[in-house]
Amino acid sequence: MTGDISEKSSLQCAQPLMYTDEREKEDFKQLTEQKKSEEPVQGRWARFNFCSPPWRTFFLWHLGEEWIILILLGIIPAIFSWAMDYGIEFFLHSTIWVYEKAHDHVFLQYLAWVSIPVVLIIIAAGFTYLVGPQAAGSGIPEMKAIAKGIDVKGHLSLNTLVAKIVGLTFALGSGMPLGKESPFVHIGGICAAQLSRFAAYIGKVKESKAQRVELVISGCAVGLACCFGTPAGGLLYSIEVASTFFLVRNYWKAFFAATISAFVFRFLPVCDGSFATITPLFKTWFRQEHPYELLELLSFCVLGVLCGLAGAFFVFVNGVMVRFIRSERRISQFLVKTRVLYPALVTLVIATLTFPPGFGQYMAGELTQKETLYALFDNYTWSKHLQEDHFDPSDHSVAWKHPHVNVFGTLAISFIMKFFMSAVAISMPVPCGSFVPAFVIGAYLGRLVGEVAAVVLPEGIHNNGTIFTPVPGSYAVAGAAAMSGAATHTVSTALIVFELTGQINYIFPLIFSVIVANIVAQSLQPSLYDTLIRVRKLPYPAELTWGHHNGPSIQVEDFMVKDVKYITLNSTFKDLHKILFSRQFKCLPLVKSADSMILLGSIQCVQLRALLSQHLSRARQLEYLREDERKHSSIPTSEDENEKDIQEVSPLKRPTARGFQDSDITLKTLLCSHSIVEGLEDDPDMEDTMTKKEILEWEELQLEDKVNFNDCKIDPASIQLLERTSLQKAHKILTMMSLDEAYVTSAGKLIGVVSRSELRKAFETLAKVRAPVTHPPMETLRETRTRCRNTDTPEATELHSLLGSESSLDQPAEPEEK
Amino acid sequence: MTGDISEKSSLQCAQPLMYTDEREKEDFKQLTEQKKSEEPVQGRWARFNFCSPPWRTFFLWHLGEEWIILILLGIIPAIFSWAMDYGIEFFLHSTIWVYEKAHDHVFLQYLAWVSIPVVLIIIAAGFTYLVGPQAAGSGIPEMKAIAKGIDVKGHLSLNTLVAKIVGLTFALGSGMPLGKESPFVHIGGICAAQLSRFAAYIGKVKESKAQRVELVISGCAVGLACCFGTPAGGLLYSIEVASTFFLVRNYWKAFFAATISAFVFRFLPVCDGSFATITPLFKTWFRQEHPYELLELLSFCVLGVLCGLAGAFFVFVNGVMVRFIRSERRISQFLVKTRVLYPALVTLVIATLTFPPGFGQYMAGELTQKETLYALFDNYTWSKHLQEDHFDPSDHSVAWKHPHVNVFGTLAISFIMKFFMSAVAISMPVPCGSFVPAFVIGAYLGRLVGEVAAVVLPEGIHNNGTIFTPVPGSYAVAGAAAMSGAATHTVSTALIVFELTGQINYIFPLIFSVIVANIVAQSLQPSLYDTLIRVRKLPYPAELTWGHHNGPSIQVEDFMVKDVKYITLNSTFKDLHKILFSRQFKCLPLVKSADSMILLGSIQCVQLRALLSQHLSRARQLEYLREDERKHSSIPTSEDENEKDIQEVSPLKRPTARGFQDSDITLKTLLCSHSIVEGLEDDPDMEDTMTKKEILEWEELQLEDKVNFNDCKIDPASIQLLERTSLQKAHKILTMMSLDEAYVTSAGKLIGVVSRSELRKAFETLAKVRAPVTHPPMETLRETRTRCRNTDTPEATELHSLLGSESSLDQPAEPEEK
Repeated sequence: MTGDISEKSSLQCAQPLMYTDEREKEDFKQLTEQKKSEEPVQGRWARFNFCSPPWRTFFLWHLGEEWIILILLGIIPAIFSWAMDYGIEFFLHSTIWVYEKAHDHVFLQYLAWVSIPVVLIIIAAGFTYLVGPQAAGSGIPEMKAIAKGIDVKGHLSLNTLVAKIVGLTFALGSGMPLGKESPFVHIGGICAAQLSRFAAYIGKVKESKAQRVELVISGCAVGLACCFGTPAGGLLYSIEVASTFFLVRNYWKAFFAATISAFVFRFLPVCDGSFATITPLFKTWFRQEHPYELLELLSFCVLGVLCGLAGAFFVFVNGVMVRFIRSERRISQFLVKTRVLYPALVTLVIATLTFPPGFGQYMAGELTQKETLYALFDNYTWSKHLQEDHFDPSDHSVAWKHPHVNVFGTLAISFIMKFFMSAVAISMPVPCGSFVPAFVIGAYLGRLVGEVAAVVLPEGIHNNGTIFTPVPGSYAVAGAAAMSGAATHTVSTALIVFELTGQINYIFPLIFSVIVANIVAQSLQPSLYDTLIRVRKLPYPAELTWGHHNGPSIQVEDFMVKDVKYITLNSTFKDLHKILFSRQFKCLPLVKSADSMILLGSIQCVQLRALLSQHLSRARQLEYLREDERKHSSIPTSEDENEKDIQEVSPLKRPTARGFQDSDITLKTLLCSHSIVEGLEDDPDMEDTMTKKEILEWEELQLEDKVNFNDCKIDPASIQLLERTSLQKAHKILTMMSLDEAYVTSAGKLIGVVSRSELRKAFETLAKVRAPVTHPPMETLRETRTRCRNTDTPEATELHSLLGSESSLDQPAEPEEK
Repeated sequence: MTGDISEKSSLQCAQPLMYTDEREKEDFKQLTEQKKSEEPVQGRWARFNFCSPPWRTFFLWHLGEEWIILILLGIIPAIFSWAMDYGIEFFLHSTIWVYEKAHDHVFLQYLAWVSIPVVLIIIAAGFTYLVGPQAAGSGIPEMKAIAKGIDVKGHLSLNTLVAKIVGLTFALGSGMPLGKESPFVHIGGICAAQLSRFAAYIGKVKESKAQRVELVISGCAVGLACCFGTPAGGLLYSIEVASTFFLVRNYWKAFFAATISAFVFRFLPVCDGSFATITPLFKTWFRQEHPYELLELLSFCVLGVLCGLAGAFFVFVNGVMVRFIRSERRISQFLVKTRVLYPALVTLVIATLTFPPGFGQYMAGELTQKETLYALFDNYTWSKHLQEDHFDPSDHSVAWKHPHVNVFGTLAISFIMKFFMSAVAISMPVPCGSFVPAFVIGAYLGRLVGEVAAVVLPEGIHNNGTIFTPVPGSYAVAGAAAMSGAATHTVSTALIVFELTGQINYIFPLIFSVIVANIVAQSLQPSLYDTLIRVRKLPYPAELTWGHHNGPSIQVEDFMVKDVKYITLNSTFKDLHKILFSRQFKCLPLVKSADSMILLGSIQCVQLRALLSQHLSRARQLEYLREDERKHSSIPTSEDENEKDIQEVSPLKRPTARGFQDSDITLKTLLCSHSIVEGLEDDPDMEDTMTKKEILEWEELQLEDKVNFNDCKIDPASIQLLERTSLQKAHKILTMMSLDEAYVTSAGKLIGVVSRSELRKAFETLAKVRAPVTHPPMETLRETRTRCRNTDTPEATELHSLLGSESSLDQPAEPEEK
């Protein structure tokens, strides 16, 4: 019963223009304006009715405006991010503090080093499981699906938000090689979805799914921007990861929100006195003049190849890990039963490996992820610098100094260990991202290559009187960008590291290594997120990103809703009334006649409701009365008779003295705040001129009239699908044209309707039957389908039931999992 | 007759999937493969048949691959850009050299200072007029239209390319305040279009318009990247300027090409020894640690507001200028007659104003644009620095030192003079851009604000023991980004200056000033390019960018092609043959019957041709013969009789001994390289078993057969438009779904077809009747249309004829221009 036309929301640009003529729209607005203010509002925000009407008009109305929403979208995740950093630092330093307090007892040290992370991980996993199990993992695969217009249930809820924030703080506080960034993309998306709902509530409009998707993409950009303080890089990363096409008007919005977010994230530490001014997160101090020799581009390309290979292997290892956990029935059942056991075990092993007096001495185990990155990006050449003996306390690179193993050894050990540790750690069921682990591993690899380059060219390259010595830190930066880019198949990581380090003078080496790494990795493996999408069997329109196959040719007729409510040119108001009560969609299709079913166009339900209430309005009642009086000066009616008639003819019950009874759901629900009820309530004259029975009788009479659609704005250009349009194409049309639903016609005849929820169901089904890597099952399905089309075999029935219901989907998925 | 399925081009991703089933596509590929290799190739490149077949197979085939095309797209404009910089520098230094040689005679100096630019501009204007008049101006408005899928004639031709390159070199060599960047966006687009044609030639496929548009957008990114050496900024700028939606797969391609281009552009000066290594174009040396105090953000926002106002005013002045030239009939006619007079006059005035011993002494007139930017971005505080007396020769800022006017005076004079000079200069009919003029003006304004800030805070701001002194150069950089962003309504200028200066530490002040400037400018004026689009009346789908109005509600039925060629289920091969010969589109619609006109789907012409040639194939001939022989062991036929029969029955002429005569256009054109002709040529047995007359007779007989479409792949999901779909929506569907044409149906009946050329014509018409600023004419047109729809008034006829033909369009445009 909420208003369907979003004239108050300035976010409305995504809405397809239903009315070609702006002026007509204006008229219609005025027509529906006064009704809207009394319509009840649905949704979560409806509970918090915290403002009085005058406040609402002057304050809250503006609060729903787009720029306010964007600013809020920028600020809120940034505050989360800053607060979480505090929490994470607290946990990390607590561990270190206890570890250092027990410096005389190695066993106590070990206990402290291992137990605190295990406890934290257990809390993270438990909290996530109890509050929002959807929050586990990075959330980017789900955001990818949502950005494509396919809702993944529960992933944008407040529960998930809470679980994600708390779980992530504990998980990262444990010091495991996990990332904060990808979950924050999810958090940004949730904030955006909640703000979109909030804006719809404030603006008193029904939320458009297409608009929400646009805001969610901006939220993804914000998520990365408020983690790294990188507005432009975050924006582009979110575009690359989440979208297949991108509206430029949305780019502007996302850029605005991401800038605010990054600024707030870097500004808050200045407010609390941690920093004197705003600085990049990982500021580097590489030389500005003559940063690199041209020949070094080759070594950066070699680094790119290595990072590409490592990135693809990282994706492969992670995929194997996740698949193993999911596919082995006994293992997965055991893990499901003992939810926190797996993360606790993994944490125990990783913490043991990094225990500084133990194996951790070879891999700088005592450093946190942040300190590791500070060290890897520093300006020294470790192979020289670590020979010397004067280190200041802030110099983290000393952690790689070992009496028996040289710096190449420690770097190589660190790289290999972190590689596998990260690949295993990100498979834990806690909120965690894989971007930063890949980033750190890449930095290790880059530092290693850089140190090798520095040793190979100890004197640097002489060119035109300038000496170019390789800067290993720059290789570390390039490696980080290349590796994270290779694992996620993005090139905007180059931009992220420019903003992250505050230096852009290595632009060409960096971009080249990222591009080369991407070329290598993309030719070997799907991206980390695509792998997870496949393993987790998320509903996802595959063919647009993976060129390998087109999926089984599911067609619109297989998943459309066939039982469409429609109105015809001959519909009476009674039909209209019945159909409006069913509330299938926002618009109703208008067909020529029930026999021909030729689709003429669609009419918004709001309009039809207005037509109906106008037809039953007091004005018309009075008119009727006046005419009636002219004909018969007095109408002799027996009240009992009348009552009997009404109860026979109509399903409507008798109204109470003021309005209808609660059980009179039909007209009341439909028109609860509209003219009839108002008329009954507000105008005491009415009761004098016409009894309630008479009104009902008159209404009953009026409902028999044919509807005159001449004053209606019929949208003639609704995009029609044909029954044999493929699922992928139908999805493309709906998302690209920002539609919430589309009618299916066959030779002009209306035969069905497809909305986003049908698409989602179809993609979910597809995801369940989709094989992880190999093609044969798809071929099989396609053949089955071909046969289905021709004959009414049992297979056809099975497939159609498969497509129609969600409950029976587990059977076909089983055989392929193994 | 070229192959319509682009299986050899890897650029094919833009093409909508015509065949839902990959395997079926494979089959069809194999079916058409052998025919394709003999099909003649059309287009410009067909003339240069420079490679022998084996070469072509092994070398040229790969040359058409996407990554090669992208690399070429990166390299070619970069080489143009580098070579042009040489030419421009030569002309600029020649002027200075002659000016300095005549240092004793002020009049001679003036002559040299004025005459050389005038001559150069005359050459530029004349050459542009003679070779490619489309090359005048920046070309970005046209690229915007092209990026929206609306062809603007002649703007992607080689003539235009030559005119643009030569004209731009001469125009910029004159030292006028013109830009190189926007024309280079156009040059990049032309290179992309030509390479797309080249790739289609190499790959032996027909060029897809949708694919070409994608490559052209990449070309735009390349254009900016190879002018500034800014890959990421160039890419985003081209997205913001040229697109309203953007495919992410294209982002990757554009990023790749733009990186190569920027690298080559910066690498070539290293090769020729100008630079020791790759550096940013306008490298800055601002302090890295504590670059700015947080309070300075406010002054940057003030600068943003000023730049926004100035940017909007710049657009306004330029618009007034261009409109004045175009609207005053006598002036425009005079200017058209004396083409070079206007640019010569403008150059004379501007050169006189900048004459260094004259008024130029107050505005650093002797500096070129590049030197001006070097000076404005330098690291000094001029108000202090210019008080001192020790300057090195490379210190261009000394040009603003004047004995009687202080630095604020000279900067203010420079800003105001350059502002108006630029606004006038970019209205000259030579290839020139407005981005760099706006950039330079913004740098002036920023430097002015920065110098004021430095004077207001001479001691800097003390905070936590750190002294933050304002750096006027950073304000100049921010001003440049904000002003160019405000004029063009883009935010990616921030990214451009990061890459251009090689420093990213001013990220937040810069982004904030750009965003603020954009907010101010966007609320005051349309962008520079949108203004030009309106003034020049380019065909452009307006509603997507300007929110002011929706344009008159032109609907599909007003501009669709009503005379559609179609095939029916009852079509004979003869009908097929006739229709295929007409070659209206790539696909043919299949309707149920000619009476019902119910659209069933569409079939690719290639397929129909294959059907036809298969039906007339030698195999079937032989089969027929065998069957024939079985029935009658000998066939007594009089040759004369037969011949007479054939000539009566069919329009086909008799074939010569080997194949058909040149005048036998029908079958030959259709099937020139297909099986019949091959059969006749290759198989001498054929002539023994069947005479040519018999063949023709047999063919005639075969053509009477009904076509069996069972083996055809009918595309059922072709997107249908309804006759009342609005123009804007039809355009959106065609561009978003990457279609070249769409069928129009009414209640399932085929009534027309709309292709991109119809859209272009409709938009052209709209542009002609579109009022520059005010709404009334549109309202009028809308009312006219409403009346048209209802009655067959003379107005309706007029409007429809207006929409149908291009020649009669000048009349309605006249009254609104004044």
